Amino acid sequence: MSDDISQHIDQMIRHDDNPGGQPLPESFEALEPDQIALLLESLPLDARQHAWEHVPAELHADVLVAMRGEARESLLRHFDSATLDQLISDLDAETLIELAESLPEEVVDIALARMDDKQRTHYEQSARYDDNAIGRYVDHELLILPHNSRVRDAQRLLRRAVPEYTEHLWLVDRTGRYTGAVPITALFSAASHLPLTELCDSDLEPLQAETELKEAADRFELAAVAALPVVGDNGLLLGRMPQRLSTEILHETYEAQLMATAGLNEEEDLFAPVMRSSRRRATWLGINLLTAFLASWTIGLFEGTLEQIVALAVLMPVVASMGGIAGSQTLTLIIRGLALGQITTANMMPLLKKELSVGGLNGVLWALVIGVVASVWFSSAAIGVVIALAIVINIAAAALSGVLIPVVLERFKIDPALSGSVILTTVTDVVGFVAFLGLGTLLLL
Amino acid sequence: MSDDISQHIDQMIRHDDNPGGQPLPESFEALEPDQIALLLESLPLDARQHAWEHVPAELHADVLVAMRGEARESLLRHFDSATLDQLISDLDAETLIELAESLPEEVVDIALARMDDKQRTHYEQSARYDDNAIGRYVDHELLILPHNSRVRDAQRLLRRAVPEYTEHLWLVDRTGRYTGAVPITALFSAASHLPLTELCDSDLEPLQAETELKEAADRFELAAVAALPVVGDNGLLLGRMPQRLSTEILHETYEAQLMATAGLNEEEDLFAPVMRSSRRRATWLGINLLTAFLASWTIGLFEGTLEQIVALAVLMPVVASMGGIAGSQTLTLIIRGLALGQITTANMMPLLKKELSVGGLNGVLWALVIGVVASVWFSSAAIGVVIALAIVINIAAAALSGVLIPVVLERFKIDPALSGSVILTTVTDVVGFVAFLGLGTLLLL
Repeated sequence: MSDDISQHIDQMIRHDDNPGGQPLPESFEALEPDQIALLLESLPLDARQHAWEHVPAELHADVLVAMRGEARESLLRHFDSATLDQLISDLDAETLIELAESLPEEVVDIALARMDDKQRTHYEQSARYDDNAIGRYVDHELLILPHNSRVRDAQRLLRRAVPEYTEHLWLVDRTGRYTGAVPITALFSAASHLPLTELCDSDLEPLQAETELKEAADRFELAAVAALPVVGDNGLLLGRMPQRLSTEILHETYEAQLMATAGLNEEEDLFAPVMRSSRRRATWLGINLLTAFLASWTIGLFEGTLEQIVALAVLMPVVASMGGIAGSQTLTLIIRGLALGQITTANMMPLLKKELSVGGLNGVLWALVIGVVASVWFSSAAIGVVIALAIVINIAAAALSGVLIPVVLERFKIDPALSGSVILTTVTDVVGFVAFLGLGTLLLL
Repeated sequence: MSDDISQHIDQMIRHDDNPGGQPLPESFEALEPDQIALLLESLPLDARQHAWEHVPAELHADVLVAMRGEARESLLRHFDSATLDQLISDLDAETLIELAESLPEEVVDIALARMDDKQRTHYEQSARYDDNAIGRYVDHELLILPHNSRVRDAQRLLRRAVPEYTEHLWLVDRTGRYTGAVPITALFSAASHLPLTELCDSDLEPLQAETELKEAADRFELAAVAALPVVGDNGLLLGRMPQRLSTEILHETYEAQLMATAGLNEEEDLFAPVMRSSRRRATWLGINLLTAFLASWTIGLFEGTLEQIVALAVLMPVVASMGGIAGSQTLTLIIRGLALGQITTANMMPLLKKELSVGGLNGVLWALVIGVVASVWFSSAAIGVVIALAIVINIAAAALSGVLIPVVLERFKIDPALSGSVILTTVTDVVGFVAFLGLGTLLLL
């Protein structure tokens, strides 16, 4: 997939530099909306704008839905009213739900006014759930039959066009409440007068509409089906969650986690406008600056020592950096454990013990190596002893913080992937400098 | 899902501390193998061992397959020959393929000898592909019919038990070559004497067995089906790739990327034995030590300057750390772009320009803030000017490195998620120290 796209990227950017040259590939038709979205995101804003004009109008909505929020908005901002009008003229409920946050409110209202009643009802139902609940994103293309239908009714229904990911028919009672799932393959061996209730797959628990996205995606994985029914208040069948949605949620969750480690958002556009991007990143740099000043202030406490033994200033970064690396190893392991639901109050203590032992062993090992190198470098055994002790202390502090910081953050509902490493390196910097310069003051002056 | 598991973890660890107390929950039967695997991974080695004895024997193989490599091996190491014998007495090809790397070669041979001929052929076919090719992991439970069958043959086949994720029947010619996919739902509207070839879904391109796992998972996402056929040499139908496998691959890929940022492996056991874990992490600490010494050596070049102006020693970490953070933001954005196939030679230059502009803006902004703070702190306008200039230089270097380092690493087939940030912080440390201490030497002495 990526190979295809990179070719297109190259062609389109070259074309944009030199509009009289090579023609734009007519190949948008050969690509899926997801691929076109990836491709557009890879283009600088001008080239993106230019390429967009060649996207077939019937794909507009699907491509915009597939794009990350910020890149999508970079295109919508330049829509003239005719294009916008065309875009919203024939949206279904799911598409409008996805686009609504990127559209002005009055445009959403127009889109709603043009929908048929059924889609509007779907939209209103979905919009009731917040953007982290599975109810907001249900798919309404599904095959439903009344609870008292028979095999022959199901067979008749299946003679019509069938939506993708159809493994089951869903049964509802007279009030629309979900009552069961009939595997389509069971219809081949069943007598045509048999009630469908006798074929129901009793293992298939419906998803509650309030379920959080990540939890819904996980449930899905265990169920081993192509789609799960989603029910709202009173067990009303709202729609289904197709497998595709589970995959999307996983992608977004992991991408958000990776981006969070650098204080970024998963909607971040590769080619975001410079001002916007600078403003957003400035916050993260500012937070980090506070922690850096804290570290500097710690060093400042030992100005007198540093004036006399400049070797300490030279070696400081080694102590801080070894602590930072050791801590981030523990932190990463614990963050994964938290994400998998594997860290509890009961296994915290054994985990802490294990991480402290690993830290202790590595602390001693590297303290010896660093101590020897430092003694030789500055021809002073005492400096070797000071740095060795500081390394042991800092790596132990790193192990302790690597376990405790993410657990505490998680308890306060703060994402440890986002802020864990800033806090951790603040701890290892401060502990490292205090231990090293403090021991230096005690033992070397 | 995670809530369920954490309860079990608490109960089991408490039980292990106090074997006479609370009984082990009998609830393993209520959990799926994937959940039992997560649960076992969350337990310290002794408790894990103890809990394992309560896993029903018929789930042993599935639970072991679902576990991460290292945790799985922690259990297998303690298998007595009777348990091992039972485990391998009735394995299918897919299970043995997954377990083979954790089992002694002679045990694999015994397992193979006990397989029926069909499964052994499957195993041998799969084992021909390396562990990053989709051919190795194909699922052999699928419904196959000869190319010249009719609708009634398909209907007859479907009266038997049907494997999960069955949306299609697969057609093969006389030599076993894949010729097409028949959607099951099409069988309801078709006359029973119609040849199946007329119902084939022509969009469904089979996967080549050599396809890399991540690429196969991506293909899958675009296809919107519950399973894809996998073909080997000459188009021979080897089996299918069910949706579940695509989800697993995504999980593993992302987990590997997250763990790689801290120099860890995705198979890493939360409760790995201390010695083993220390040894593995030592390598990463050692690599980092070299880069830390490089930074120290850079500082050492300016020992004379530091002796005279100790304020420089105090402020050094601020310059290094602002560069490191700014660089890691760019790096993370580019690593995501590379993973999505969005970075090419054509958009490199515009990207570099954008990142340098963002870096320039933030560099100037924070240089001013830091310059003012430093001047006030050390009552010296000159120190303010020196640190401000150093910050601008280092943030620009960070933006440049953040784009170039991952791109160059990727070109040399080195995972930028693993080594990108070590190299980046080495650059920002060295550039930061040289710029700051160098300018200090020039302007302050």
